[in-house]
Amino acid sequence: MIDETHGTGLASWVESADGDTDFPIQNLPLGVFRRRDAGEPWRVGMAIGHEILDLAEAAHSGLLDGAASRAGSRCASPSLNALMALDPVHWSALRVQASRLLRADTPEGERARRLRASILAPQAEAELALPAAVGDYTDFYASLSHATLVGSFFRPDHPLLPNYKWIPIGYHGRSSSLVPSGTPVRRPTGQVSPDGATPRVQPTARLDYEAEVGFLVGTGNALGEPVPIAQAGHLLFGVCLLNDWSARDIQAWEYQPLGPFLSKSFATTLSPWVVTMDALAPFRVPAASRGADDPAPLPYLTDPADHSSGGVDARVEVWLRTARMRADDQPAVRLSSSSLAAMYWTPAQLVAHQTSNGCNLRPGDLLGSGTISGEARDARGCLLELTRRGSEPLMLPNGEMRSFLEDWDEVILRGHCERDGFARIGLGACSGIVLPASRT
Amino acid sequence: MIDETHGTGLASWVESADGDTDFPIQNLPLGVFRRRDAGEPWRVGMAIGHEILDLAEAAHSGLLDGAASRAGSRCASPSLNALMALDPVHWSALRVQASRLLRADTPEGERARRLRASILAPQAEAELALPAAVGDYTDFYASLSHATLVGSFFRPDHPLLPNYKWIPIGYHGRSSSLVPSGTPVRRPTGQVSPDGATPRVQPTARLDYEAEVGFLVGTGNALGEPVPIAQAGHLLFGVCLLNDWSARDIQAWEYQPLGPFLSKSFATTLSPWVVTMDALAPFRVPAASRGADDPAPLPYLTDPADHSSGGVDARVEVWLRTARMRADDQPAVRLSSSSLAAMYWTPAQLVAHQTSNGCNLRPGDLLGSGTISGEARDARGCLLELTRRGSEPLMLPNGEMRSFLEDWDEVILRGHCERDGFARIGLGACSGIVLPASRT
Repeated sequence: MIDETHGTGLASWVESADGDTDFPIQNLPLGVFRRRDAGEPWRVGMAIGHEILDLAEAAHSGLLDGAASRAGSRCASPSLNALMALDPVHWSALRVQASRLLRADTPEGERARRLRASILAPQAEAELALPAAVGDYTDFYASLSHATLVGSFFRPDHPLLPNYKWIPIGYHGRSSSLVPSGTPVRRPTGQVSPDGATPRVQPTARLDYEAEVGFLVGTGNALGEPVPIAQAGHLLFGVCLLNDWSARDIQAWEYQPLGPFLSKSFATTLSPWVVTMDALAPFRVPAASRGADDPAPLPYLTDPADHSSGGVDARVEVWLRTARMRADDQPAVRLSSSSLAAMYWTPAQLVAHQTSNGCNLRPGDLLGSGTISGEARDARGCLLELTRRGSEPLMLPNGEMRSFLEDWDEVILRGHCERDGFARIGLGACSGIVLPASRT
Repeated sequence: MIDETHGTGLASWVESADGDTDFPIQNLPLGVFRRRDAGEPWRVGMAIGHEILDLAEAAHSGLLDGAASRAGSRCASPSLNALMALDPVHWSALRVQASRLLRADTPEGERARRLRASILAPQAEAELALPAAVGDYTDFYASLSHATLVGSFFRPDHPLLPNYKWIPIGYHGRSSSLVPSGTPVRRPTGQVSPDGATPRVQPTARLDYEAEVGFLVGTGNALGEPVPIAQAGHLLFGVCLLNDWSARDIQAWEYQPLGPFLSKSFATTLSPWVVTMDALAPFRVPAASRGADDPAPLPYLTDPADHSSGGVDARVEVWLRTARMRADDQPAVRLSSSSLAAMYWTPAQLVAHQTSNGCNLRPGDLLGSGTISGEARDARGCLLELTRRGSEPLMLPNGEMRSFLEDWDEVILRGHCERDGFARIGLGACSGIVLPASRT
């Protein structure tokens, strides 16, 4: 629902919120932080400009009341899970009150501003953790462009399998190796068999990223109780950026018949700031239109709201910075830009499908969108697609070539939402640098 | 290591431990329980005969000392995770001291016996929970017989894929829908497409069980640090029985290209008592011998201990009791009996493979063996195999026929280890009854 918190006229007393930032007062994403070297426990905060509003402290200082106060009481916690487990009215109340606290023109803002020293922490002085303790992480495959192009590499004879346009294809990922943005990622070693010959064990020669968003579950559902599509979207708390690091040579050899395993489980990076579904309200769009020959979704996947707000119009970009670029003090280069709005399946369809067999989602569970790719060449969300399995290496502006990732490459995902008449909000960044494989 | 706790001569002052029980004093499995209707918190206990030794209370009463006392201090907990996270010397010390406490011929036993009323709880009066809070659940596919026969149904042209004898094939399962033995299992509804035609949504017509054991991880490893095969077995805490309920028609339609998803995620049942690796020491056997044409495992999967103790000789049985059998007061009938010792990959190989890319295992993580099947017809660990995809229905002794599971069927897994010169120990039971699908 679009409300007062989305107004373009809002100004914050936090000066950096009004400049060039992913986190203007219309965004208010949630994360888990602590002041570096302060020896304090992790707690829940809200990004505003270059600062963090310490929600645990705000609650403690009596700045919140009613449902927002109940939400605030869950913020002295090392994860968002306790907050997520509350009824969504609490999340919305917290957003509305935090917005007023951060505004330059409200009595609440006046009061909060006087407590600035205790309730604000500079992002530059904070460590950021994973936003949620993720019980189960599932990863979908919701981009038709991605599934078609990648499928053509793995299965030239039948790139898009017959089930794709009926089932939001997904699988279970690994929760233990989810890491927060900024965590270095060690190049994994594993079995590869390039020509179907006797396999050998070596560091992956085809390390890739996948640009995704992750949907974090709020209240969840009970085991045995499917969530009807009309309610499915309400289970979601918010989104972050997700890099589903992938070792393509390991994947090609291991993935049949049970799906990707070690090719993905060595690391998955999440951005620290969860942009709430409330914040995204202005950027909801109709689900992507289907081809004339595409089947209509089955009834349990037919969302009555699809015609107006099934999709999310967020843009996700991939940026790369190599070791040489860092040495030469050159900035990262953008490799791709694609839109979440183009996905074949909406977030509500993912939730409805995942729970259709009675499977339970718990607060903090994570649903990855799958690689977000579009038709255009510069809209391909992984190197496998961009370089056509390495056969068409990219030339970077400084002359370096990339088929897949090299050691010390840094991959940065960025995301944002823009729409005329609304403030631009950002998803922040999700970065990781590739470390050389361990010597064994 | 075989030690004093395995002696056949041991007798317990707990009378039922010396009769017909899965839990003689040589077993001492761990679980999480509470006395029914007593309003007390969940805590860790140890099964002995028909009783449970309340380890939280035993620790509180000063019956444990040294490393066992530190272990005991982790037992006032609703899961085994805190105990699992300790160094294995603590688990072993707890076992040794608990054995002495429960013996009829020790001073410690004398003392414990006087506290009987406070430290023992009858199993008949207890509720049992999941033994661990499972962060990640992975399921392997380690039975060559199972993989070959099932593969022939799904892929008649190439039943056993080229990677099978090189890679311990596995995939990530769903943790949220793990349930303790005794929890009813609702028949799931999902998309099926029997002839590749337009799919329809219906309750599964091919509901199956899979007889497995689950290996529970103890201390775990750090992200980025593969566990060498020689250490891999030491990460394991113990085993329980696992029923990987499966909807075969949903599975056949959804599983490509990313593996089984909703066909498995509606429920997975675990037995409540974790038989520790210490208890299993007398039943370790050489890894199953390979065919002359089978490749030797790659070095990272070559276990120097394989020649003597790579495998586990446990027998797993599947029993079925239908509604009519219950109405007629007939006992369950045994459908199959198979041996974990026959698996193509050992538990240590599963751990070494899973961590070979740096993936971290955490205390309480679960590794399923995959369906335990042998060559013999009565050693097939699921109905898919037993009835050859339903084409050869089973006739039960009362004349009922089964291709797949019917509503109100109860499936009970049982397991045990036997060896001359040692006491027989049991894995207990893992049961679930099938409820009709929800009306939607």
